[in-house]
Amino acid sequence: MPNGPDHSPLHISFNTSGTERADAARNRRLLLAAAKNLIDHHGAAAVTMEAVAREAGVGKGTVFRRFGNRTGLMLALLDHSESEMQQAYLSGPEPLGPGAPPLDRLLAYGRARLKLTCDHLDILLEAGAAADDFMTHPVGRASTQHVQILLRQLGFADELDFMSLAVQAPLAAGSVRYLMVEVGLDLETITTQWQEMVTALVASRRSQ
Amino acid sequence: MPNGPDHSPLHISFNTSGTERADAARNRRLLLAAAKNLIDHHGAAAVTMEAVAREAGVGKGTVFRRFGNRTGLMLALLDHSESEMQQAYLSGPEPLGPGAPPLDRLLAYGRARLKLTCDHLDILLEAGAAADDFMTHPVGRASTQHVQILLRQLGFADELDFMSLAVQAPLAAGSVRYLMVEVGLDLETITTQWQEMVTALVASRRSQ
Repeated sequence: MPNGPDHSPLHISFNTSGTERADAARNRRLLLAAAKNLIDHHGAAAVTMEAVAREAGVGKGTVFRRFGNRTGLMLALLDHSESEMQQAYLSGPEPLGPGAPPLDRLLAYGRARLKLTCDHLDILLEAGAAADDFMTHPVGRASTQHVQILLRQLGFADELDFMSLAVQAPLAAGSVRYLMVEVGLDLETITTQWQEMVTALVASRRSQ
Repeated sequence: MPNGPDHSPLHISFNTSGTERADAARNRRLLLAAAKNLIDHHGAAAVTMEAVAREAGVGKGTVFRRFGNRTGLMLALLDHSESEMQQAYLSGPEPLGPGAPPLDRLLAYGRARLKLTCDHLDILLEAGAAADDFMTHPVGRASTQHVQILLRQLGFADELDFMSLAVQAPLAAGSVRYLMVEVGLDLETITTQWQEMVTALVASRRSQ
């Protein structure tokens, strides 16, 4: 199915809302950009309906009419980030996008995925996004396909399914929650250690 | 808490039933051995209350009185296997138990854990044993501690928390379900590929 001719979703939505009028779409982008800005500067906890309205310079009612409640806003934001991420690894600039060597692309993918997981940790955990769920969800399938293409370029063959699971498992919401909340690691440390693990696995493959 | 002086559970139960009279304990062991025998020869699906009664040579009522229903039986069986596993890696024969080189012990641990996950897959999934749950559950904490001791002997230091998560994630119920059911790998293939991954990670650490 993910490889079928009729299946070309650059962007697989968490919540599809169909076609939007141009001004509604512009309004939506404006609000999501405001919310993303709050996450980047103050963390996900800073994203409230009120703060997004203030940041976007619109009335609170506009935010509520558009997203219903905070969960709706956070899901739309996750969908937006996931869409941006997919465009970035499929056709964006290097090293995440095409052109860079496959190991650089894989490491860039992991960095971007960890950042995304960390930014949206609460809503991912609420939505029950365990490691296993990620692998079977459409978004996860698209990411897994991307990781497998890179792993294949790096010399993996029979072990593609196992390796793509093993490499992606520490990037999932449950893993990141465990490492950050239970263990107390920061995002930078997790990112560095993930990159070291992947680099070691690729090096061992190349030396065979 | 796992390292505290009052915390010395060689055997951390999923369902603690307190002290049992000697004959009740013997009866329980007999029924669990019969159920384990069914799993080993015919898979978990073959474990019904009727089949266990037949295998143990007792009346069906005895099995129902002891475990209530099939879920109770499967949870008791999981607890029993987990207890055996803990005794095996803490004080059993090599290579799982003490004495063998740490890499051999780690590989043996993974083989045993994958077998256990596979044998009890349905009840683990029902109980919601995602990768993250495993890390925070008492049974998971004991296993993580064991894996970290071996990783430390293999030269890992700062990355112990990350590496023990990364190494254990593919052994969890959700991962095994994905690899067996969605991908269609068999237990032997998963075991081989897990062992190759761990061996590569340890080799890269040694060569630093």
